This record gives sequence, C-alpha cells and structure tokens, in this order.
Amino acid sequence: MEKINSTQNAKIKYWKKLQTKKGRKKENKYLLEGWHLVKEALMVDAKIEYLLVTNDFRYFDDIINTEIEQVEISSEVSLYLADTSTPQGIYAVVKMEENRQLTIDNLAGGWLMLDGVQDPGNIGTMVRTADAAGLTGVIFGEGSADSHHPKVLRSMQGSQFHIQLVNADLMEVATVFKENHIPLYGSELNEDARSYREIPAAANFGLIMGNEGNGMRNDLLNTTDANLYIPIKGRAESLNVAIAAGVLMFQLKA
Amino acid sequence: MEKINSTQNAKIKYWKKLQTKKGRKKENKYLLEGWHLVKEALMVDAKIEYLLVTNDFRYFDDIINTEIEQVEISSEVSLYLADTSTPQGIYAVVKMEENRQLTIDNLAGGWLMLDGVQDPGNIGTMVRTADAAGLTGVIFGEGSADSHHPKVLRSMQGSQFHIQLVNADLMEVATVFKENHIPLYGSELNEDARSYREIPAAANFGLIMGNEGNGMRNDLLNTTDANLYIPIKGRAESLNVAIAAGVLMFQLKA
Repeated sequence: MEKINSTQNAKIKYWKKLQTKKGRKKENKYLLEGWHLVKEALMVDAKIEYLLVTNDFRYFDDIINTEIEQVEISSEVSLYLADTSTPQGIYAVVKMEENRQLTIDNLAGGWLMLDGVQDPGNIGTMVRTADAAGLTGVIFGEGSADSHHPKVLRSMQGSQFHIQLVNADLMEVATVFKENHIPLYGSELNEDARSYREIPAAANFGLIMGNEGNGMRNDLLNTTDANLYIPIKGRAESLNVAIAAGVLMFQLKA
Repeated sequence: MEKINSTQNAKIKYWKKLQTKKGRKKENKYLLEGWHLVKEALMVDAKIEYLLVTNDFRYFDDIINTEIEQVEISSEVSLYLADTSTPQGIYAVVKMEENRQLTIDNLAGGWLMLDGVQDPGNIGTMVRTADAAGLTGVIFGEGSADSHHPKVLRSMQGSQFHIQLVNADLMEVATVFKENHIPLYGSELNEDARSYREIPAAANFGLIMGNEGNGMRNDLLNTTDANLYIPIKGRAESLNVAIAAGVLMFQLKA
C-alpha cells in the first residue's frame, strides 16, 4: 500500500482541492470524510476511486479486504485534508453521478427544489428528509449551496447514494412540470397563501423551498400551481426552512 | 454611560461567566448576543439588566432611548464576551424566568419534552418549532443540553420569550400527565410502534423526543400512552430529531 506523509505530495494537494466547489466541479469527484459516511459508500457500491486511511484508524480490519485502492496517510496529512477539526482518519475519493437532465421519462415521483437555500446544514438535512419521505430527488437551483459541500455531506448522511441530486435552472424545471401536468408547489410565509393541509397527498409533485431570509424568487412563485403556507399558531416569526420542508414533504408524498 | 475597555474588568469577567452553564445556573441570568435577539428581548419587555454596546454598533440610535442601563464596551471586550467569531457588538444581560413547577393547574396545552437531546442547534430549532406549532412549552429532561446555551439561543430565535422552558425530571412529569389523563406520546425508530398519522390532533398532550443516537430511555418509553413512529419510505436510516419533532408537533397540535 502506498504511504504518504507529506501535505506537499501532489496527490494530497489534488485531493485537498476536492474540498472546494471549484475543485469538485472541475474533477467531478468529492471527498467523503469519516467512517459512518465512508461505510455507507462502501455498502451501496459507490464509485470510490481511493480510500485514504491513517495507520491508527480503528476500523482498519473492516476495510482491508476491499479491492478499492488504498493509500496510508499520516495524521498530519489527515488533518490537512479534513473539514472537521478531529477527523477519524478515513476518507473516500468518490466520483460524482452525472448531472441528470429532467425529462418526462424520468420525472416520476416527488421532487424537492431549492431556490437559493444557503445553509449547508439545512440543505443536507433537507436531502436526508427527502430521502426518508420517499422522494425521487432534490433539484439544486441557482444560488443554493453546493450539493457536495463537506457540511452538506455530513448532514445528509449518505442520502446522495439513495436519491437523485440534480443541478438545474428552476424556471426551466417549472416549465417541464407544467407541460407534463405535474403539480408544482411553492412555499411562502404569507397567510393568504394556501394552507398545506388542503393539498392531497400525491405520487408525483414538485415542492420549491426558498432562501432562509428572503423566501422564493417572485418569478418562480408565479409559475407554480399553488403556493403553500404552514399556519404559525404561536408567536414565532417563521419556521426553519428544513423543518418547513419536512412538514410539507411528509404531508404531500403519497 | 459607563465605558469599559478591559477584559480584566470585574463586571466583564462576571458577564463572561454567563456564557457557561455553571455561571448561568449560579446567577440565574444569561447573555443574549446580536441585534436580532436583543431587539426581540426589548420588544417583549424581557427582564434585561444591562445592554452592552460597542460604540460603532450600527443600530445605536434605536436603543439609546431605552431606560435600561447601558455600558459601552470596546471591540476587544465585545470579542471576549462573544460566542460567535464576528459579533455585531450588542449584548443583553437577561434574567431567567423562574423554573416552573408543573401541576394540573398549568399543564394545559401541548408540551414537547427532551430526553437527552444533545445538539444545541437541534434543541433551539425544536423550541422555535414548538412555538410556531402553538405548544405551551418545552420541558428539558436530564441529559439534554442547556436551554440557554449560546447556540440554543441563536437557533431558537427569541422563542424563550414566547413559550415556557422548564427543567424537570421526565419520569415525574410523566406521572403528572398520567394522573391527569392527558395523553403522553413517546417517539421511537421502530416500525412496530404506532404510526403518527393514526393519532388525532388534540389541544392537550405531551410528546417526548429522545437522544440523537440512542433514542428515548426505556423506562420512559414504558410510561407513555403510545410510542409514535414516522414511517420511513425511502432508504434513509432515520430522520434528524428536530425534523421528526416538527412533523409530529404539526400533526398532534389541534
């Protein structure tokens, strides 16, 4: 097994770049960190290019038999690659799925769409919830945080292996939904909008969630079949966007 | 107005202690940080003892007319007191509400109970959601993170001023609910538990959420009228605890 002890090593520098959006986009790969997430990637047979492991990694015996190429790294290299401050000492270099084009042939099911959602923790939690609620995928519109940001990876807990993550222009997606007569719902903090409880659960639908502070873009609000509101019964000004998405997805998905 | 420029000042050292659980418990006060939260405290007439403000604080004119005692602090002192890395330069020293004893006379409404929930961000979001869903309060059981932890304060967005936050032994609380024939629900990740959709919405109820990794304690699970399960339709292993609490509270509260 190859051993790398220097953060100046060219391979390490290359993998470190995968912790940036630019690096991920260029190489179409990302770095998965921590045993829980790497184990999930191994179990679902994700396209893993390398496993990077420190020699004191606890579960070494569990991975030693895989055919995936392994590289032993020093603790110093591990810290350099890590997004967390106390890394476990295991990483996987994973190839991203190709970005899917949404057409009538693959539009079946429930879709969550993100219009400028910015907090990576919120986004990861929303993907994990979409997975749990039985949705087909999550569409990342312009202005939303990157789907493979290290914090998104941590909070989505492997759901990128279970459901589709797609980057697309949401105005174009809205047109495809409209043309195919699939209900498309927006969400807004507006008591005059339609209460989410009035909407029957369905097999196929799209649900758009907006930016944490500003909500959905107006032009997008105008393209939907209905914009939904979760009635606030207490004195809170609003709901966290991931909570709102959770309540709506479990209501809408049949 | 008093001006303090040194982190060695006795008052500053005293207020700094309020950023720890021990300090808050001893003094029965906490430090609120940032304009959004302080503004909320001013609006609801919270028991504010002092406002601490840097001289370059942007909204200085908005607070100058309050009768609350103000102290001008240097940027260095502000950074020393802050829990965030880029503080806005405003703090309020707030007196905590007295811990409430739960009796039949004040048990009306919906109550969320936390059994060993540990992540402050999750907890704050759950309090904010309980507020939005119209619950009466949140009961912090043993082993849950502190209700006035700086990160809890940030994610609950002022909901401590809207609903009750109570520290109590959940086994004793369960007994009070039982004696008064108020439905008490647990939650568990167990397909044999009762689907949450079968439970009718009600004005009065208790809902217990468990630890992120281990769920609820067994002895507490045994005291409930029913333990609820949110069916997972996809391949996610579980839901984030704050999302699960959100889905359940909006289902249960009439």
